Amino acid sequence: MTEANLQPENSVPLDAGVVRTDLPMADARRIRYYDTQGQVRTALDQRPADDQPPIGQMRLDLLTDEWIAIAAHRQGRIFLPPKELCPLCPTHGDLLSEIPDSDYEVVVFDNRFPSLKEPDPQWHLPENQGTDTQIPDAAGICEVVCFTSDHSTSFGQLEDHQMRTVMEAWRDRTRALSQKDFVEHIFPFENRGEEIGVTLAHPHGQIYAYSFLPPKPKKMLESATSYFEKYQRVLLDDVIARELRDEIRIVATNEHWIAYVPFAARYPFEIHVAPRVSVPDLATLSTEVADAFPAIAKEVLLRLDGVFGMPMAYIAAWHQAPVKIGRDVLRLHWQITSIRRAPGKLKYLAGSESAMGAFIMDMKPEQSAAQLREVVL
Amino acid sequence: MTEANLQPENSVPLDAGVVRTDLPMADARRIRYYDTQGQVRTALDQRPADDQPPIGQMRLDLLTDEWIAIAAHRQGRIFLPPKELCPLCPTHGDLLSEIPDSDYEVVVFDNRFPSLKEPDPQWHLPENQGTDTQIPDAAGICEVVCFTSDHSTSFGQLEDHQMRTVMEAWRDRTRALSQKDFVEHIFPFENRGEEIGVTLAHPHGQIYAYSFLPPKPKKMLESATSYFEKYQRVLLDDVIARELRDEIRIVATNEHWIAYVPFAARYPFEIHVAPRVSVPDLATLSTEVADAFPAIAKEVLLRLDGVFGMPMAYIAAWHQAPVKIGRDVLRLHWQITSIRRAPGKLKYLAGSESAMGAFIMDMKPEQSAAQLREVVL
Repeated sequence: MTEANLQPENSVPLDAGVVRTDLPMADARRIRYYDTQGQVRTALDQRPADDQPPIGQMRLDLLTDEWIAIAAHRQGRIFLPPKELCPLCPTHGDLLSEIPDSDYEVVVFDNRFPSLKEPDPQWHLPENQGTDTQIPDAAGICEVVCFTSDHSTSFGQLEDHQMRTVMEAWRDRTRALSQKDFVEHIFPFENRGEEIGVTLAHPHGQIYAYSFLPPKPKKMLESATSYFEKYQRVLLDDVIARELRDEIRIVATNEHWIAYVPFAARYPFEIHVAPRVSVPDLATLSTEVADAFPAIAKEVLLRLDGVFGMPMAYIAAWHQAPVKIGRDVLRLHWQITSIRRAPGKLKYLAGSESAMGAFIMDMKPEQSAAQLREVVL
Repeated sequence: MTEANLQPENSVPLDAGVVRTDLPMADARRIRYYDTQGQVRTALDQRPADDQPPIGQMRLDLLTDEWIAIAAHRQGRIFLPPKELCPLCPTHGDLLSEIPDSDYEVVVFDNRFPSLKEPDPQWHLPENQGTDTQIPDAAGICEVVCFTSDHSTSFGQLEDHQMRTVMEAWRDRTRALSQKDFVEHIFPFENRGEEIGVTLAHPHGQIYAYSFLPPKPKKMLESATSYFEKYQRVLLDDVIARELRDEIRIVATNEHWIAYVPFAARYPFEIHVAPRVSVPDLATLSTEVADAFPAIAKEVLLRLDGVFGMPMAYIAAWHQAPVKIGRDVLRLHWQITSIRRAPGKLKYLAGSESAMGAFIMDMKPEQSAAQLREVVL
């Protein structure tokens, strides 16, 4: 670590009064602080420099033409540590956590157990050549986004300004990761709840930058491209127009955003949140629209927790247009899917969903939307 | 119910000494007994004729061009009843179960809470017409396959001859369901284990006959078709040839079958079991190959349970060629996927898998195959 890393030029002003400060961690990973109060970030990572896990590999599943990443080093991940040992809390006393400073607002740092890692500069995705297809390194980037230093809250319970800072971090990382040659798709998301396998209780999300277009966005690109060729219109524009027209599945709206249970929802509680204006990704979202996000996000997440009066396990997934293609036909939206269908019952992805990809919904989307709307906030 | 239903012409001799007897149930559903000991099946369903649930609907998810079935009546399903109330045990004493007779070997009956139901004769799958796409009835067939009358065993623990009878039932139902105009794809499967949401402990599987080609087989058909166009060879033939050549991922073999952890496995314990000879589906499997199935199936399932010395939760999925298309490029195999990666740890389908379709494997397939091979049977 050199003095240069600690110079003020590591601080970059962003939107909404947020300033980003980049610092190295002991093992050469990077941490980025997103601050709004003029904090000066200089705390050094005091931990011994652990060896970084090696890069994994990717194998092509020929039966489906899909890449599978193999990250065999991840079995050592820490599993639901108590608060005193939480690696996502700020460093305090004897606990040297992932965040060297004794306080933070929002931080984004490189994942210590990444499924995907930055590859050699000459890396490229091999072509499908049947059983002769090469086995490339598992190229990509995995980052952790800590939403707050408060271990015991949740994303939906953040103050508006905190959520706005998280939004700014997502936008900043989307911009930065889009610059990397090997990155094809950027996916900020949050897994919430032990029911879906979350291993750290501290409120946090992740960002995956893939070196290939993942199967779901690939399929969404195909659908949107076909639709555009047929109707000369953006598919999600028309889908959202139908939701506004039908009205019955709308969960919340404000001047800049709309939240709805989609017409063909896959999960008992599934909510899509989209900006009213069509933009390809978080990086291209306007300040004004970004500013209006916390209000709708909080309403949606509070309604979700209110349905059964208990914190709802969910996956909250930002769907962005791919970095290099499809930017005129795919548009940004946020899909929240919950697997809980009743207080004591989860929806499992069993035979039909898992092996056939065919979803069976046990509930009408209109019913789900009604339950969400009925929650008293 | 008329006398005609009870005539011997309802008994049909099948392969391997199995005789099928068809009978109506009280609510007009059908039950089929598969017997090997000359049993005469005449027991009447003594229960009051409950109303059958209405047919659901299917909605097209335009973002992915995938049909979602909505079966809003399924919330009433019975959840893990005690053995004394098991609806899949034979009828005995006061318990009037789904199986009217007091004993059975293997039965297949129409699901009481079907996600998909037989439609009107004029039913057809609507075309994708964007937001104007019609909402068809949820056409299809859902059947329950009881593997044995013994409540407390498992599929992998059946005697060879019992498993052979189950195989004969799968083949018979595949043949019969293939005759129905509206059926495009037939999927026999077993969900095992509470961890994946099984609601009845009695050893049983299901058969879904879809009125559309589900997303996964659709994708497999695309891959196999491209491969055939490029190499003039059947994709799975070459995939299996690689497994035999590499040898390191082979779990078990016999004269007619091969079982392997696939080169690009998605799950910590995933085993594919394929006949050595290339056939499109169970109906076209030869008697000789069907006879050799129990030996390999049992070895594979016992190895799976042996890895952690505990019953392994799994989905066992028969992948068949679609009924009407792709029968020259897709071939029958059985995919077993388990979500357990350690005694106390499950693999969850979180953000990357669920929202992006991009699988991350925490374990090398070769390691998984070694653990399976090391199990002492």
